[in-house]
Amino acid sequence: MTETRPAFTGPALCALQAHEVVAMLKRGDITPRDCIDAALTRIASVEPAINAIPTLCEDRARGAADALESTSGNSDVAGWLAGLPLGIKDLSDVAGVRTTYGTKGYADQIPRTSDTLVTRIEARGGIVIGKTNTPEFGAGANTFNDVLGITRNPWDTTLNAGGSSGGAAASLVTGETWLSHGSDHGGSLRTPAGFCGIVGLRPSPGRVAADSDSAFMIESNDGPMARSVRDCALFLDTMAGFNPASPISYPADQAGSFEDAVIRATPNIKIAFSADLNGMAQTDADVLSHLRSVMHRMEAAGASVDETCPELPHLERTYHTLRGIGFAIMARRMPEDISRHLKATIHQNIARGRALDIDNIADAHLDRTIIYNNMLRLFDDFDVLACPTVGCMPHPQSQEWVGEVGGQTLAGYMDWLRFAFLATTAGLPAMSVPVGPGPGGLPIGLQLIGKPRGEAALLAAGRAVEMVMGGPLPPIDPVVTHS
Amino acid sequence: MTETRPAFTGPALCALQAHEVVAMLKRGDITPRDCIDAALTRIASVEPAINAIPTLCEDRARGAADALESTSGNSDVAGWLAGLPLGIKDLSDVAGVRTTYGTKGYADQIPRTSDTLVTRIEARGGIVIGKTNTPEFGAGANTFNDVLGITRNPWDTTLNAGGSSGGAAASLVTGETWLSHGSDHGGSLRTPAGFCGIVGLRPSPGRVAADSDSAFMIESNDGPMARSVRDCALFLDTMAGFNPASPISYPADQAGSFEDAVIRATPNIKIAFSADLNGMAQTDADVLSHLRSVMHRMEAAGASVDETCPELPHLERTYHTLRGIGFAIMARRMPEDISRHLKATIHQNIARGRALDIDNIADAHLDRTIIYNNMLRLFDDFDVLACPTVGCMPHPQSQEWVGEVGGQTLAGYMDWLRFAFLATTAGLPAMSVPVGPGPGGLPIGLQLIGKPRGEAALLAAGRAVEMVMGGPLPPIDPVVTHS
Repeated sequence: MTETRPAFTGPALCALQAHEVVAMLKRGDITPRDCIDAALTRIASVEPAINAIPTLCEDRARGAADALESTSGNSDVAGWLAGLPLGIKDLSDVAGVRTTYGTKGYADQIPRTSDTLVTRIEARGGIVIGKTNTPEFGAGANTFNDVLGITRNPWDTTLNAGGSSGGAAASLVTGETWLSHGSDHGGSLRTPAGFCGIVGLRPSPGRVAADSDSAFMIESNDGPMARSVRDCALFLDTMAGFNPASPISYPADQAGSFEDAVIRATPNIKIAFSADLNGMAQTDADVLSHLRSVMHRMEAAGASVDETCPELPHLERTYHTLRGIGFAIMARRMPEDISRHLKATIHQNIARGRALDIDNIADAHLDRTIIYNNMLRLFDDFDVLACPTVGCMPHPQSQEWVGEVGGQTLAGYMDWLRFAFLATTAGLPAMSVPVGPGPGGLPIGLQLIGKPRGEAALLAAGRAVEMVMGGPLPPIDPVVTHS
Repeated sequence: MTETRPAFTGPALCALQAHEVVAMLKRGDITPRDCIDAALTRIASVEPAINAIPTLCEDRARGAADALESTSGNSDVAGWLAGLPLGIKDLSDVAGVRTTYGTKGYADQIPRTSDTLVTRIEARGGIVIGKTNTPEFGAGANTFNDVLGITRNPWDTTLNAGGSSGGAAASLVTGETWLSHGSDHGGSLRTPAGFCGIVGLRPSPGRVAADSDSAFMIESNDGPMARSVRDCALFLDTMAGFNPASPISYPADQAGSFEDAVIRATPNIKIAFSADLNGMAQTDADVLSHLRSVMHRMEAAGASVDETCPELPHLERTYHTLRGIGFAIMARRMPEDISRHLKATIHQNIARGRALDIDNIADAHLDRTIIYNNMLRLFDDFDVLACPTVGCMPHPQSQEWVGEVGGQTLAGYMDWLRFAFLATTAGLPAMSVPVGPGPGGLPIGLQLIGKPRGEAALLAAGRAVEMVMGGPLPPIDPVVTHS
């Protein structure tokens, strides 16, 4: 990467923010078909380099646009998208569209019905333009699979775009779409946002409901990704609310939209900053140095910043127990013709989950509650806890996972993602906001963890960071470095 | 029991419904101290026979009344109680008041802080008059413990008042209080309501938040108990809403109060009725005959009733896994000086929980989701699923649990409570509404299970049943039959 930002040579429409395009759609200045045309033009141009949206559904999108234009719309609902094309992660079913979960056993699957979250997004005026790439069953923070191949980081196509919502992040930063859906257990909405330089928000449990075979598990959450904080809020408005698919989902707050909260944001926020979550998570020196400079800029703009972190007893163990339960559930009734294709790291995850005993599970419940309560006390004094999204800059995509960060050798597949574990374990909303250019001119994310049910304030804090750091920035052309 | 209802000889104020007393308090016709005086008079009169509120806190209540009278109040908030005395179950901490959890190891515990649910109830104008009795750690549906003794059924003091919110139910039906708090894992808000002839509602997960060492478990819920459906709704309005103590709690619906939903109720509801949850749960012939007659009366009043039940695969196994996880968590870090006092059935519960393996837990997650989804489909056609609250009339209190129902010998401690398992497992709100007099002139409850997040409609359905069956009825004097 050079010190100058890569150019953007796509259609001008693709460089706008989602909320700007939605406003034009609402006014009738443009039609959903105009947006589809622009998106498809851009997709055709950049997909060969990045492979972010390997499955398109142009006919279905055009049909949806026609259907939308023939209705009166629903423009007074918060999150109404008015015919904006967007991406759905290939872990979520879209009726009539190939949905592979990134695994060979489902390589040819065409669901007859959509995930109810997709149905909601469509009912609120979103148009599915295609399915974004993901690692097999979303496992890992590097987006590749044996069905649809590798998604490359648009800032340098030899680099990892992050995962598991890697296709979504790469598609956004190149301007293929204005909004893209993702999901997160161990940072899958946050890591790719950090690595690609976009915004990704992991909501709190029940805020955004989707279909699940284990609907009472609350650790895996769907959520919005966008190029700006305001767009991320707009998309959260689209997704949020009670959905009978999820027994823990709940009605959207009628007090105001998340987008409104972003519009009202100011930099006068109280930030707790942790460089290492009490020594639990590692960070490369250049990353940490950059994030400290971001904190200084926030302070200069009116924020208060204190370096502090509550006690987080057994956070890593607790997170891995929760993750393990999820994999044990996934594997429990998986047909052999699906499971036999799984990559080695998934088999390892399943084995780790199946080795759990009831004492492990009891400990996880007790410790996550302690962690949650300690975080609650932190929020008596602070609006957000800030920390790295990931402790390193993007490594080569050819490296499945990162084995050394901050001078420490890491043994486990997930060890480099430890900053992601806190929000998942504590059930707190968290987001990654671009605070680049970081080391090497590459994107870098700051993670903000918010109060329980505090997405509105979290987004406002994210907007404060974005404002101070000069964002949002326009999309880029891929920088092709792979052969 | 005779065919005539027992007399009520307590203060006239005690015979009113809670919402009536609250209206008088709001108007200034009476003061909180008047209510405290009336309640204490009634408590002094009936406690010797029933032992429902073994711990009183008169001084604290009078202090709270004084504090409340010196403030301007908050009468525009839904659920505002304006100084109404009420009971808190002895599983929940009340600052400065002996809180035993019904176990010898905490026999002398006096918490310094209140459970945040108690704090909320007090902030909304409720005054704690005392702690209601419960089985040890709430385990079982028969209220007795080695610290505070036996709570007796006011309809016949040799009978079981139900549990675990047995003190709450008995105190309500005798007019000791107008509202009482309870909690429910395996029917603890419903069974005692059925056995004592009052209303008890188990909310859906997150509706009513309380403190917990395992705040991410969603099977144990606090909730309201009252003599009328409207009062139960009023108390739910008091309790409901986001509480940071619980990461899965959520803001109260601003569209209207639960009390409003009850006021608007009509009998024109669609009821699915199941006599046995597909053969899983047993019912004595006289109980079933009575409930069928109730269904006929509902039909005559304008409701539609169809006998149907969705598939509920492995419901019993799933419930017991969830219950077992809870006991394993409870036991995991329990000090020996607490655990050595536990009754035999709790040790059995813990052992059952500790024997769970990860496959059991995975199965429970998968099966409860199937059960939930099957219930969702039922609600496409029906407003509620009705079934017995308990399949038998109250047995003698001396019998810890019921070993034969509907002609079947039951081997397990919880087997007679199987009708309670569905709502807990599926995360659905459920209530018991009095539909007596039942066999032998004793109280009997009808259980109604509502849609996800559907407490408002559930309460309206409960009110419809109450109207058709001629309720609510005034409180009674205890019928003392024990020696």
